[in-house]
Amino acid sequence: MDVRVGVIGGGQLARMMIPAAVELGIDIAVLGEADDVSARQAVTQVGDYRDLDTVLAFAATVDVVTFDHEHVPQPLLRELEARGVAVRPGADALLYAQDKLLMRERLTALGLPVPDWQRVTTAEQIDRFVADHGGRAVLKTPRGGYDGKGVRIVHGSADAQDWFDDFDALLIEEAVDFTRELAQLVARNPSGETVLWPVVETVQQNGVCAEVIAPAPRSAGRVSDVAAEIALAVAGGLGVTGVLAVELFETADGRVLVNELAMRPHNSGHWTIDGSTTSQFEQHLRAVLDLPLGLTGSRDAWSVMVNILGGPQDGTLPDRYPAAFAAQPGVKFHSYGKTPRPGRKVGHVTAGGDDLDDVAYRARAAAAQFD
Amino acid sequence: MDVRVGVIGGGQLARMMIPAAVELGIDIAVLGEADDVSARQAVTQVGDYRDLDTVLAFAATVDVVTFDHEHVPQPLLRELEARGVAVRPGADALLYAQDKLLMRERLTALGLPVPDWQRVTTAEQIDRFVADHGGRAVLKTPRGGYDGKGVRIVHGSADAQDWFDDFDALLIEEAVDFTRELAQLVARNPSGETVLWPVVETVQQNGVCAEVIAPAPRSAGRVSDVAAEIALAVAGGLGVTGVLAVELFETADGRVLVNELAMRPHNSGHWTIDGSTTSQFEQHLRAVLDLPLGLTGSRDAWSVMVNILGGPQDGTLPDRYPAAFAAQPGVKFHSYGKTPRPGRKVGHVTAGGDDLDDVAYRARAAAAQFD
Repeated sequence: MDVRVGVIGGGQLARMMIPAAVELGIDIAVLGEADDVSARQAVTQVGDYRDLDTVLAFAATVDVVTFDHEHVPQPLLRELEARGVAVRPGADALLYAQDKLLMRERLTALGLPVPDWQRVTTAEQIDRFVADHGGRAVLKTPRGGYDGKGVRIVHGSADAQDWFDDFDALLIEEAVDFTRELAQLVARNPSGETVLWPVVETVQQNGVCAEVIAPAPRSAGRVSDVAAEIALAVAGGLGVTGVLAVELFETADGRVLVNELAMRPHNSGHWTIDGSTTSQFEQHLRAVLDLPLGLTGSRDAWSVMVNILGGPQDGTLPDRYPAAFAAQPGVKFHSYGKTPRPGRKVGHVTAGGDDLDDVAYRARAAAAQFD
Repeated sequence: MDVRVGVIGGGQLARMMIPAAVELGIDIAVLGEADDVSARQAVTQVGDYRDLDTVLAFAATVDVVTFDHEHVPQPLLRELEARGVAVRPGADALLYAQDKLLMRERLTALGLPVPDWQRVTTAEQIDRFVADHGGRAVLKTPRGGYDGKGVRIVHGSADAQDWFDDFDALLIEEAVDFTRELAQLVARNPSGETVLWPVVETVQQNGVCAEVIAPAPRSAGRVSDVAAEIALAVAGGLGVTGVLAVELFETADGRVLVNELAMRPHNSGHWTIDGSTTSQFEQHLRAVLDLPLGLTGSRDAWSVMVNILGGPQDGTLPDRYPAAFAAQPGVKFHSYGKTPRPGRKVGHVTAGGDDLDDVAYRARAAAAQFD
């Protein structure tokens, strides 16, 4: 067989699938939003992923369709499947990564731990929920939110009025008193085989992932067991294929709650490129092709991944390589081939080793070379 | 800067530079012999590397020119340099990888240990050398030899006559009584920075590399010191830029002799993709761009690389992935996207771990899945 994986969306997640595909000798094709996207090396078609004819033409050139993002509309996904296209993850699973209200309902039905939440359609419901939760809560739009967008802290319905113009129903949740955020990455193939990487700690800045520590410190035992149990229940319960990231809150009172789901390789798993026997990108390709999954053991006692946010505003990342490589010869540098812009994810660095303080220092110092 | 590396030749060595280039955000362009070569993903031009206009047109599109092989003619390399093209390694260095007689003369002048050798132009000289060396010797054509071609064992001038039709002078060497073959990989950038990977043991079958063990067993101490010393002397003495592989003989009487040189990433370094902090392919890109070099520490106590020679004659490597991945979930599989053919290098596998017997078993078992 000459296997060909088609990726809808040309961002850095699609880009980072390319090295894994080249090493495995698997063809990869990308439907890009433009010809200069991050995954430009593999773009075979440029077009709108919301246009059925565009996506059908792309799907006809590949053996399986997967994704760089979760924004492909449900009706289009359903039509692809109705026409026999292998879509992984499938529409039934992606639904819960696209709609946070449906996700909360489904996870609650599965008996999984989630923050106290409610579907609200009126100002009165918001005011009552806020009053019942100490005067503040988290309001979310059911769809279209990512990297902090579509999420806001509210103290009453006055903070929410504008969103009712766009959505009939909103999701309101308790403002969880969490001590830290964790992420559990899991991969599942259509045959049902699943593998887990160690649970990691993620550090957010302005709603964007800034740093990941693998494994999460002080997670051995109960925390990692609970995180693994939750991720396996979500992957199996929702019938996810490919890589799934379950974002978690660890609370002051010792609970582990599901925050968000991502059904694709995820920022919290970038460390696996350099730090795991099988990277999340190779694993995603294996999973969507229903191939046996690879081992997920860590290459180092500790791995720390730091995002390069913004990047040098006076040039490109490679402009800084002479100084950065000289300063940190053991750190792995990853550039997404994107034009630097304040706050934009343009690359990441990963360090590994036996001493967490040293590893974190080297990763942060390497990333700082691109400020 | 938007850095662009141009690679002349589209074989698997060029192919394996692609993942490193994508991760670093460095553009890579390949001048391929055809549009379906192993490095097809990066082919920007198809043409004959022996044609000056073809190569000049290609060189005009990149910042630095490097190579998948050493067959680009000297006059063409000289012309490129005369026109200001950055050629790495340069013509002065490549000369010694292209002509084995010049290589032996130069290494001897540098005082490096080589087998007893002689430049021969007549049948009488061959017969005398053979008689002086116990009735057998190794005869080599100065140019055009690789993977066992251009090399033969001779017992007298009768075995050599046909080669004099093509070459005025031949290289004759003592048939070294070696206990094993080693390879020392080194990288050097134009600024003169050099880094060494551990010396490895290479196992040849019919003149083709079949297996590599890193580090070479029982090499700690003298053997690794001597191998390192030789490689640094060659890299510096010949002014090599990029990755250099020095193939060595370890003799029954304890000598370490230089066999061949390769001025490019080399089969003996494929294990570094999975087994070293910096792979030889990333290091080659860093070196030809005169960027600081990366650390070369090993990720595992032992790495074993086994070539997939020939491959399944009834299909492609991915056809065997379901069985191979299931049997060896911890082994890293690499396919070169080439059509299987008896004896052809179509891929390789690498295993790593603490126990050499176990690591070697897993690597060999994984490669055997493609018989």
